[in-house]
Amino acid sequence: MSDINERHRDRMERKKAIIDAKIAAADKNIGVLIVNTGNGKGKSSSGFGMAMRAMGHGMKVGVVQFIKGAMSTGEELFLRRFPEECSFHAMGEGYTWETQDRERDIAKAREAWEQARAFLRDPSYGMVVLDELNIALKYRYLDVHEVIADLLDRPEMQHAVVTGRAAPPELIEVADTVTEMTVVKHAFKAGIAAQPGTEW
Amino acid sequence: MSDINERHRDRMERKKAIIDAKIAAADKNIGVLIVNTGNGKGKSSSGFGMAMRAMGHGMKVGVVQFIKGAMSTGEELFLRRFPEECSFHAMGEGYTWETQDRERDIAKAREAWEQARAFLRDPSYGMVVLDELNIALKYRYLDVHEVIADLLDRPEMQHAVVTGRAAPPELIEVADTVTEMTVVKHAFKAGIAAQPGTEW
Repeated sequence: MSDINERHRDRMERKKAIIDAKIAAADKNIGVLIVNTGNGKGKSSSGFGMAMRAMGHGMKVGVVQFIKGAMSTGEELFLRRFPEECSFHAMGEGYTWETQDRERDIAKAREAWEQARAFLRDPSYGMVVLDELNIALKYRYLDVHEVIADLLDRPEMQHAVVTGRAAPPELIEVADTVTEMTVVKHAFKAGIAAQPGTEW
Repeated sequence: MSDINERHRDRMERKKAIIDAKIAAADKNIGVLIVNTGNGKGKSSSGFGMAMRAMGHGMKVGVVQFIKGAMSTGEELFLRRFPEECSFHAMGEGYTWETQDRERDIAKAREAWEQARAFLRDPSYGMVVLDELNIALKYRYLDVHEVIADLLDRPEMQHAVVTGRAAPPELIEVADTVTEMTVVKHAFKAGIAAQPGTEW
């Protein structure tokens, strides 16, 4: 065996020992609360990728899209094909700067939260995706303490995924896994429009 | 109308004007090269969420999973249900630290790249997801210049999504959109095992 291959094997053996020990220590199986935040791409798409994984494992998924909804996105068009595996609910008012009516936004957000709460109380849902919920919290359309109470009260094995830039610190505090998506570069700045398939 | 609602409307109007101008300026429609990198969660799941979006818009998707493949993931179980909409290919050797045989890894990675190249030359694929390709590049299982040449040579309207930590600078340079997923906190550190639905 050549030298580079031997060094590779040695390094990999040490790496494997470390990882194996970590895996052995992480032995709890429980539903996790995941938050995807930051200004970069991939917050919502990661939520829908997890929905796909959950459905692959036979879990039922509930989705509520806050803020979005005026235009049908690829994820909506796709997920509505599986009504028995995925319950899809969109707030349906478009982005807030399309409506510019705060009272109407609040009423719509509350309605959407009622739907979210129904999923969060139903153990038949293995995962609940709350897309762009952070935006509704940022604009104080919903009370963060009420939202957190409902999230923490969900069935023990249920996963919850919250997306949107500017996640409130109170939510980050109680979450199990938090990722910040940061922009390294974005096609939009180079004059490329939001593309179907990648952005919506 | 109350003061807070009026201020909200004013702020939203200004925001909308800025965003509308940006949208008008970004008028190119073209396939984009997206790279998800960093140590945080959401790189692969975002890739699969984009695959879902693309399928929702009626695009055919090609997936090659580098590195992964010893165990069936949720995304594989799910996507294999739609062979006409998604061609799924896994390198099939598990993580490199399971095999610890560099020469075999290289042979398998090359085989996987041949599959990737076939997707990248076929305009009937609207999106190609190259999951964990960055890891194969990091270990120099594949030549970064060869990979970039094939990526840039793809059909004009085809999207390509590359995931994995440690994306090489040469790839970041040529990509349209690059996101770094950074860890704010991770459930694994609190002793929670990788959960089906969220991690795999």
